[in-house]
Amino acid sequence: MQEEIFELIEGKKYARLRELLSDMNPADIAQILEDVPERELPVIFRILPKELAAEVFVEMDSEMQQLLIEAFSDTELREVMDELFMDDTVDIIDEMPATVAKRILSQTDAKTRKMINQLLAYPDDSAGSIMTTEYVDLKKNMTVDQAFDRIRNVGLDTETIYTCYVIDQSRHLLGIVTVKDLLLNEKSRVLSDIMDENIIYANTLDDKEEVAGQFEKYDLMALPVVDKESRLVGIVTVDDAIDVIQDEATEDIEKMAAILPSDKSYFRTGVFSTFKARIPWLMLLMISATFTGAIISSFEEKLTIFPALIAFIPMLMDTGGNSGSQSSVTIIRGISLGDIEFRDIFKVIWKEVRVALCCSTALAAVNFVKLWLVDYLLLHTFDPGKQIPEILVVCFTLLLTVIVAKFIGCVLPILAKRIGFDPAVMASPFITTIVDAISLFIYFRTAILILGI
Amino acid sequence: MQEEIFELIEGKKYARLRELLSDMNPADIAQILEDVPERELPVIFRILPKELAAEVFVEMDSEMQQLLIEAFSDTELREVMDELFMDDTVDIIDEMPATVAKRILSQTDAKTRKMINQLLAYPDDSAGSIMTTEYVDLKKNMTVDQAFDRIRNVGLDTETIYTCYVIDQSRHLLGIVTVKDLLLNEKSRVLSDIMDENIIYANTLDDKEEVAGQFEKYDLMALPVVDKESRLVGIVTVDDAIDVIQDEATEDIEKMAAILPSDKSYFRTGVFSTFKARIPWLMLLMISATFTGAIISSFEEKLTIFPALIAFIPMLMDTGGNSGSQSSVTIIRGISLGDIEFRDIFKVIWKEVRVALCCSTALAAVNFVKLWLVDYLLLHTFDPGKQIPEILVVCFTLLLTVIVAKFIGCVLPILAKRIGFDPAVMASPFITTIVDAISLFIYFRTAILILGI
Repeated sequence: MQEEIFELIEGKKYARLRELLSDMNPADIAQILEDVPERELPVIFRILPKELAAEVFVEMDSEMQQLLIEAFSDTELREVMDELFMDDTVDIIDEMPATVAKRILSQTDAKTRKMINQLLAYPDDSAGSIMTTEYVDLKKNMTVDQAFDRIRNVGLDTETIYTCYVIDQSRHLLGIVTVKDLLLNEKSRVLSDIMDENIIYANTLDDKEEVAGQFEKYDLMALPVVDKESRLVGIVTVDDAIDVIQDEATEDIEKMAAILPSDKSYFRTGVFSTFKARIPWLMLLMISATFTGAIISSFEEKLTIFPALIAFIPMLMDTGGNSGSQSSVTIIRGISLGDIEFRDIFKVIWKEVRVALCCSTALAAVNFVKLWLVDYLLLHTFDPGKQIPEILVVCFTLLLTVIVAKFIGCVLPILAKRIGFDPAVMASPFITTIVDAISLFIYFRTAILILGI
Repeated sequence: MQEEIFELIEGKKYARLRELLSDMNPADIAQILEDVPERELPVIFRILPKELAAEVFVEMDSEMQQLLIEAFSDTELREVMDELFMDDTVDIIDEMPATVAKRILSQTDAKTRKMINQLLAYPDDSAGSIMTTEYVDLKKNMTVDQAFDRIRNVGLDTETIYTCYVIDQSRHLLGIVTVKDLLLNEKSRVLSDIMDENIIYANTLDDKEEVAGQFEKYDLMALPVVDKESRLVGIVTVDDAIDVIQDEATEDIEKMAAILPSDKSYFRTGVFSTFKARIPWLMLLMISATFTGAIISSFEEKLTIFPALIAFIPMLMDTGGNSGSQSSVTIIRGISLGDIEFRDIFKVIWKEVRVALCCSTALAAVNFVKLWLVDYLLLHTFDPGKQIPEILVVCFTLLLTVIVAKFIGCVLPILAKRIGFDPAVMASPFITTIVDAISLFIYFRTAILILGI
């Protein structure tokens, strides 16, 4: 398929190309156009039927969009923009350099421009920033038949027709009517009798992640958004909610791995941008790890007396780090999904401490048996008279470290969230460093106590 | 709200309770019922209007469902089951102990039972396991008006009416018609003229994660599923696709944090289950960390000559681990989202190597400056004559470790995926251990080389 298209482009067989592309899905066309040479792009774009062209345009990444806009005449630009839904227009303008954005705005009428500027003003993470302003609004005294007439009139230009919004004269939201309701009711019934007044809605400034969560919880197709005066100003559709869910998951994963989140896909991010996203945490964590080094330094002389203790440092640090991140990651995800809130903190601690007791006992026991069986009975590298105290130190440290690591791992994200920080940022990258320092501290204190050094 | 409901339950004011609950959303009612004492649950459930009761039932977790089923008479059980969509019924049966499942099946008619058993047979991660069998099917010679009649007839019992499927006599999928198409066309037009024949569909055995990806890519509301003979057997709706997207993200996050994935929420998983999900990786990683210990042991004597080298071990291990997991996590997410495939491996390596060069240079430089400025000029804990070689060892190790860590971090997930392993499992938890061992090896080799020990 892809090869055939490239051959047609090569051979400039545009009539056949148009025919072929017209049957394809916008998302697939946009994907194919990514591999087309830049100078060919405007030509191929122009042969697409007008409506399809706009749909393909929306699916493109912002670099390709900018390239096309710069190649467009004013008329072409206006034609494409006229076909777009408001939320897509705003997204595109948001990504463009100021001059390009200005040119786009200059091609829209005053009313649209005002609307766009209003939408652009909503904070990036708000419901307002992902909503669209094209929806079907109805009046409560309309009949089912009248409602269908209105849907037929405005439906082509709205993002969804299946959920319609019943509003009063000041645009206050009164109820919701679905096309299913309309189809299953008598044509003469009045909307106020059949509309659902138990509405799930969002405010323009609500967090978009929470809004996406509502789609999941209530299995919604669309969600109305109201302003401070409870007037309907837009709707969020399920496709945008899915994008938010995916983006937020990616963002959480990036933060947990000590990366500054980016909103572009892997290959779209340049080497320098990737570097900039990764180096701040690497730097911070490297510097904070020198404190762990300081703990070792202060214990240096004693370590030269018991050099065998050095070999256990990586195992204790890693096991502590892994135990801590297991807890923190579980809790962070639970917070993201709305399963865990601040009031659950003691419930969480109680659970994590019991899990930690099981884990640490099992780990310490296996470690003890391993040292005894393998190192002593099998390899004979182990001198029971001298080293049993050392092994006790290691096992006891393991026991304590895992418990402390899991405690910190579960408490830190919840506290971070409570004081308004992002749990994924505040908790996850730091866990390893904090747990490293603590596990070494426990290790050396235990050594001093048991070995009497 | 919640308190008022609890008071009504306490006071057994069931008439008012029914009134209040009837206006609420099923998901909210299910959430409130979670906190109701178990013995009250069947009573409250019985006062709900029949249809709402079934909707609430679907939203409950499996423990509550089982409790209710055990309290139901056969008639009640049949009534609830009759209201459920096929995919929900199958999900519920899948979660129940064998005896309860058998009882549910005995309350369904032979045809439904056959269908349920067919759906239960699909693998857990397949499109077949999340599809429902209730949809609107149409014939291609129907008119728009006839199509509306059919929708009115069967629509109440289907999960969505908005996308309808045009099939032939052997149930082969010919095209798709949306209610929007139907509303915007003349009543006398024939479906074969207006249906969309360019269909995005899945096969029953397709991976459900890929199916969910199609919803995201093509902004779908529902996706038809066909069997090996290309006959339409069901549809996946967008709400189920969202659940898959969330579950897969949670699963990836858990795997990256060395936890065996579970499909229950945090508080629904018992202490022992949580322990079982966490201990295997902790154990494996603890044991593999002893190899790192062995590397240190083999270098023990030399470390007692240059004890200052010990203090840098945590910093080098952590920085290596962080660098590696930044890469692996980015690549694993890219693979999940379909951005990165095996054929991109050299593109990925080339990018990661350049990023690694930038990162490692910056880190080594900062480390050098820090040791020089702070430790030498400020703290005077640094003896240039003796320790400059040591610092060179540390900086050079840092340089090399970060590059190797990022290389391994990007290659391992892609290779794991290629040979059919889960990238998130195979790559992420192991990265730290592998990088630890490698960074220590580099550290000691460099020390031997530069310090001449």
